[in-house]
Amino acid sequence: MEKPYVIGIDIGGTNTIFGIVDARGNILQSGSIKTGAYPEIETYVAAIAEGLQSMIRQLGGNEAIKGIGVGAPMGNFFSGCIENAVNLPWKGIVPLAQLLSDKMGGIPVTVTNDANAAAMGEMAYGAARGMKDFIVIALGTGVGSGIVIGGNLVYGHDGFAGELGHVIMRRENGRMCGCGRPGCLEAYTSATGVARTAKELLMTRTDASLLRNLDPESITSKDVYEAAMQGDKLSVEIFEITGEILGEAFADFIAFSSPEAIILFGGLTKAGDLILNPIRRSMDAHVLSSYSGKIKLLVSQLKESDAAILGASALGWEAKG
Amino acid sequence: MEKPYVIGIDIGGTNTIFGIVDARGNILQSGSIKTGAYPEIETYVAAIAEGLQSMIRQLGGNEAIKGIGVGAPMGNFFSGCIENAVNLPWKGIVPLAQLLSDKMGGIPVTVTNDANAAAMGEMAYGAARGMKDFIVIALGTGVGSGIVIGGNLVYGHDGFAGELGHVIMRRENGRMCGCGRPGCLEAYTSATGVARTAKELLMTRTDASLLRNLDPESITSKDVYEAAMQGDKLSVEIFEITGEILGEAFADFIAFSSPEAIILFGGLTKAGDLILNPIRRSMDAHVLSSYSGKIKLLVSQLKESDAAILGASALGWEAKG
Repeated sequence: MEKPYVIGIDIGGTNTIFGIVDARGNILQSGSIKTGAYPEIETYVAAIAEGLQSMIRQLGGNEAIKGIGVGAPMGNFFSGCIENAVNLPWKGIVPLAQLLSDKMGGIPVTVTNDANAAAMGEMAYGAARGMKDFIVIALGTGVGSGIVIGGNLVYGHDGFAGELGHVIMRRENGRMCGCGRPGCLEAYTSATGVARTAKELLMTRTDASLLRNLDPESITSKDVYEAAMQGDKLSVEIFEITGEILGEAFADFIAFSSPEAIILFGGLTKAGDLILNPIRRSMDAHVLSSYSGKIKLLVSQLKESDAAILGASALGWEAKG
Repeated sequence: MEKPYVIGIDIGGTNTIFGIVDARGNILQSGSIKTGAYPEIETYVAAIAEGLQSMIRQLGGNEAIKGIGVGAPMGNFFSGCIENAVNLPWKGIVPLAQLLSDKMGGIPVTVTNDANAAAMGEMAYGAARGMKDFIVIALGTGVGSGIVIGGNLVYGHDGFAGELGHVIMRRENGRMCGCGRPGCLEAYTSATGVARTAKELLMTRTDASLLRNLDPESITSKDVYEAAMQGDKLSVEIFEITGEILGEAFADFIAFSSPEAIILFGGLTKAGDLILNPIRRSMDAHVLSSYSGKIKLLVSQLKESDAAILGASALGWEAKG
């Protein structure tokens, strides 16, 4: 009989959350630990294993678990390692899949990065159910992406495909990106990018805005959203600028893989039509005519609090045996 | 026993060439007809079938043929149709695979576009043997592309993925492309794009150049190549400009699918290091640091006269049964 459950683990810089998930995407049990409290990878893995084992016992033991999926920054699907992640306590190359599988009595462990995990989650339980070709764009602190082609996640030859936050959108006077290059999509359309656009407009223009009541250095994308919801014109324009650039980028992504849908995920999607309408307009205006009107723009259907565990857990279904 | 041969058919605006190919990529027999001489698709298909049947008889009959692959402009893998190809005599949607298979006693027929066929050819017999993740960029009259991920050609949800000639490289004052949008890669780096760059530089600058001996309206990429080979500085610079833009584009493609190699194909590759060195420099300068030095830049290993038949024939190996 098919094993009924999978485990999802999401490793973030602050928290690590984990849970046991059934085939319909219900999280039956979950827990969390502080990532930063474990400077040694061995004690970190032991803490996760301990948390999981008590849950597993209540659900029928290891026999009931098909696999463990892990979403982690710089998680490499091919090697099962976390490779040189800057925001995690463990430096260099960490053989996480091996360490965790050993601790968990040999349950197969699969690792990938968080945006790829989000794409797997959408395909297994979310907006991409039944789709074989789609792209998930995660608009958070950075801009991540998970690309699915023919029903398979695109890992590339080395496991690091899908860095769509780092295509160059502005080749002249581009904004410096965290990656060290100017003009990346991420520099304009991450939550941080939205805040930077706000700061730029406030500095270079003189029109009134609710945002002028805030310290420009500490404005967040949430502030911009709240002002826009109150009808603040400058804030609405900031989302239009952001959506314009995203639509331009999506037109190029479509020329690559001709997906059925582009699915947005992450904090910025809470702005709803404020960001979706400009993206849609820009995508339609910029896409090659042969694709025109064929590609859906969707928002993740996974509850945000569950999405990280669900996404990682979806990898668990791919385990052999 | 595995059937020993496949058939490749390349449909061009001027000529249609076809041949029978063995598993090592040897073209055992080949022929051609004038595409434009057959305004009716039925008589065209009958002419190809007639040409093929006499060849097949000499090689053991239909039993020896595993499949037929066709490369055609706007060829759709999923539907087996040629859809609204502007440079072919037959308008609208032409069910080529069905028509040809019926005429050929039921041999399975697979259709795709010419750049995809080139990618299949490289994987079966050329520079991509043993690779599972690579991108073929065809630099000809236009810029075509065939993308292979995980050993499979990327068709996208509708069969029209891989239009990398139409990603936007210049968002400000971009050159108008044949697709009706400004700034496409193709407008700068196709053979036609190289000629346009030549014309622009000759008009906007005053430095001496061998190209000034030619009628600027009729300069071709071949003229630029020949002048560059004689040491003409302006012509060398034209290839540098072209290579710079290609390298910028390749850096973005790499962020998408992290390929093992990018393989160049088509007339412009005859310029050799004149174009390859600038591409390599630009690609290295623009790629995200985590990919740096990992991706090979290669030139097609297929003999140009054979490449079209070989590429199309490679699809024949994928036929069922």
